Amino acid sequence: MNQIPSILTAIREKSPLVHNITNYVVMNNTANALLAIGASPVMAHAKEEVEDIVTISSALVINMGTLSKNWVEAMKLAAQKASKTKTPFVFDPVGVGASTYRTETAQEIIATYTPDVIRGNASEIMALTNSTLSTKGVDSTHNSLDAIQAAKQLSKELGNTIVISGEKDIIVTGEKVSTVSNGDALMAKITGMGCTATAMVGACIAVEGNTHLAATAAMAIMGVTGDITKNASNGPGSFQMNFLDNLHLLTSDQLSEYLILNE
Amino acid sequence: MNQIPSILTAIREKSPLVHNITNYVVMNNTANALLAIGASPVMAHAKEEVEDIVTISSALVINMGTLSKNWVEAMKLAAQKASKTKTPFVFDPVGVGASTYRTETAQEIIATYTPDVIRGNASEIMALTNSTLSTKGVDSTHNSLDAIQAAKQLSKELGNTIVISGEKDIIVTGEKVSTVSNGDALMAKITGMGCTATAMVGACIAVEGNTHLAATAAMAIMGVTGDITKNASNGPGSFQMNFLDNLHLLTSDQLSEYLILNE
Amino acid sequence: MNQIPSILTAIREKSPLVHNITNYVVMNNTANALLAIGASPVMAHAKEEVEDIVTISSALVINMGTLSKNWVEAMKLAAQKASKTKTPFVFDPVGVGASTYRTETAQEIIATYTPDVIRGNASEIMALTNSTLSTKGVDSTHNSLDAIQAAKQLSKELGNTIVISGEKDIIVTGEKVSTVSNGDALMAKITGMGCTATAMVGACIAVEGNTHLAATAAMAIMGVTGDITKNASNGPGSFQMNFLDNLHLLTSDQLSEYLILNE
Repeated sequence: MNQIPSILTAIREKSPLVHNITNYVVMNNTANALLAIGASPVMAHAKEEVEDIVTISSALVINMGTLSKNWVEAMKLAAQKASKTKTPFVFDPVGVGASTYRTETAQEIIATYTPDVIRGNASEIMALTNSTLSTKGVDSTHNSLDAIQAAKQLSKELGNTIVISGEKDIIVTGEKVSTVSNGDALMAKITGMGCTATAMVGACIAVEGNTHLAATAAMAIMGVTGDITKNASNGPGSFQMNFLDNLHLLTSDQLSEYLILNE
Repeated sequence: MNQIPSILTAIREKSPLVHNITNYVVMNNTANALLAIGASPVMAHAKEEVEDIVTISSALVINMGTLSKNWVEAMKLAAQKASKTKTPFVFDPVGVGASTYRTETAQEIIATYTPDVIRGNASEIMALTNSTLSTKGVDSTHNSLDAIQAAKQLSKELGNTIVISGEKDIIVTGEKVSTVSNGDALMAKITGMGCTATAMVGACIAVEGNTHLAATAAMAIMGVTGDITKNASNGPGSFQMNFLDNLHLLTSDQLSEYLILNE
Repeated sequence: MNQIPSILTAIREKSPLVHNITNYVVMNNTANALLAIGASPVMAHAKEEVEDIVTISSALVINMGTLSKNWVEAMKLAAQKASKTKTPFVFDPVGVGASTYRTETAQEIIATYTPDVIRGNASEIMALTNSTLSTKGVDSTHNSLDAIQAAKQLSKELGNTIVISGEKDIIVTGEKVSTVSNGDALMAKITGMGCTATAMVGACIAVEGNTHLAATAAMAIMGVTGDITKNASNGPGSFQMNFLDNLHLLTSDQLSEYLILNE
């Protein structure tokens, strides 16, 4: 647990370049959250350049929220390059299960390029291991606890770390399960909070090689900032604004003080 | 008028999935506004999946703000599917009249797929019935009242509901005209407020089959939230933030108390 | 210097239509900033319509932040049309140097279509004159002062105006160098502030034919609004909100009072 504040410090010292191939809805939030925590975001999706950008980056974030043919091709090129350059890679299977196209794309990316971390809500993680499960759009209809078995199975198959976001954030690596119980219910009413969490995993795996620890740090940063933010906010508009301010102002001491971590 | 608060209640109870094929500029605002009112937004535009997404959705919102070839093809596939599945469909002809491409696309979508509701500003509604009218970009240069005749003509041809947004919001179905006189002038200085209004129509037609009533409820929700927001805001930045907070906090009592509706 | 407040007044009186072909990350910010200062933004990127939109616009802004093949083709069509219609044109070579694709695209656009103004950070301006210089993503790793020689060289070759944004904003036309020393360090922690500055150049060149003066006015508007904003803000979230409010509220008197201009 003492290692988590030091990951925050490392992000601020190294300002790692984090390459995001993400969805149109959240690009602005994601870039701002990465800047606020101290990382340096770059958004680039052209097939002509994703490999160049992976090469200069310290982490790759792929989020399939508004996927389409050209973007999926670029995602694959970037993931393949990350595999060659040993660039840490986190994948967010947004809305997997909501369409055949999403399900097939997510499964192909996971099977072929083995992300170091996969982050999704409970429905998404469950859909990854059960192609017949239907989800309702992009919002979770399942509880995080229900998804733990699916996450363990997936983590063992892939040899990586799975994060199930929700009221509690659950980080699973093989049989190891850590739980972060911070954050606020309002975060589910703000678009892209999950995508921001995935990008935060990108910032953490850029500076920390232990993916379980890095993913836990990312969820801790999101949850603790959420806790700090909730009292000063009237609704989802002010919450978003204050969240960004508080991410920028977050200290290692606050992380230690507020964090509710079970492992 | 008593039916309008009950539409708000229905959105919050049912949390309908609203499928948006919308423009890059406003995707984040639109998704957040739908979440704030209690709906569940999904943004998906790939030809490979729009039909799947329409099938699981309770309403379809098509907004052509940043149209291009692939997107227009997906819009048509989605609209065709919505027609088959009887999924309510609202169309926003952003900037129609500003280019030949926009005008032809809007006219084809309207003629072929008959949206249940069309929402635009006065210039856009007038451009839909007069292909030689030129508009100045995406901001209206005409008064809402001028567009009523065009709206009546269009509504009768299509057998649907037309909304003219502006200082007053005018809802037209055949000869029936309702007017919502809420809202604030600052809303015209914020990008995507009109697109948010269209998405709000999507949330309302998802739970209410009477399109005139649903569109009126959407304009009431936008206008009343604008009224509540204006006094606490210094400019377009704080207005946007407070608008989202107030949309989340909006009560049926506030809707009844503030609404200025003539019909 | 007295001419700068009058450019602000002219934007508000004429409300010029500014055509933006810009990146996904900042479209919303850009449109809102243009509305807040009094201009009328239009975002359009389809090859089928960019020439029509240039024809009705008073300025063209091309920003290659999230470039891809179709977009680059549209950028070229729009730039070519702007050249024919004598529509003022500002170019933002976001991240040039970070990939071969970006560098080649930027160099082709500059060499073929001669933007009236180019705005970038120090690393980007240096990369335009030195194709072997590598940059780190989209954030500057060089000081603005280092880039002045590169800017002078580029300005003389192209016969245009170059803006180097940074802690100080430097406007270069041939040997003429003006410096705006307003603004706040927090602006570098907010995505798209540079892109907003480029769009602001678009609003200014739409109403002022002297590109050096227009670019200086744009940097003055950004910097002074930043100065006004910084004291009331806790971090990048509240800064963004207040910046938009203050852009909307900015007066000619404030511009004169706060501006720190050396020329």
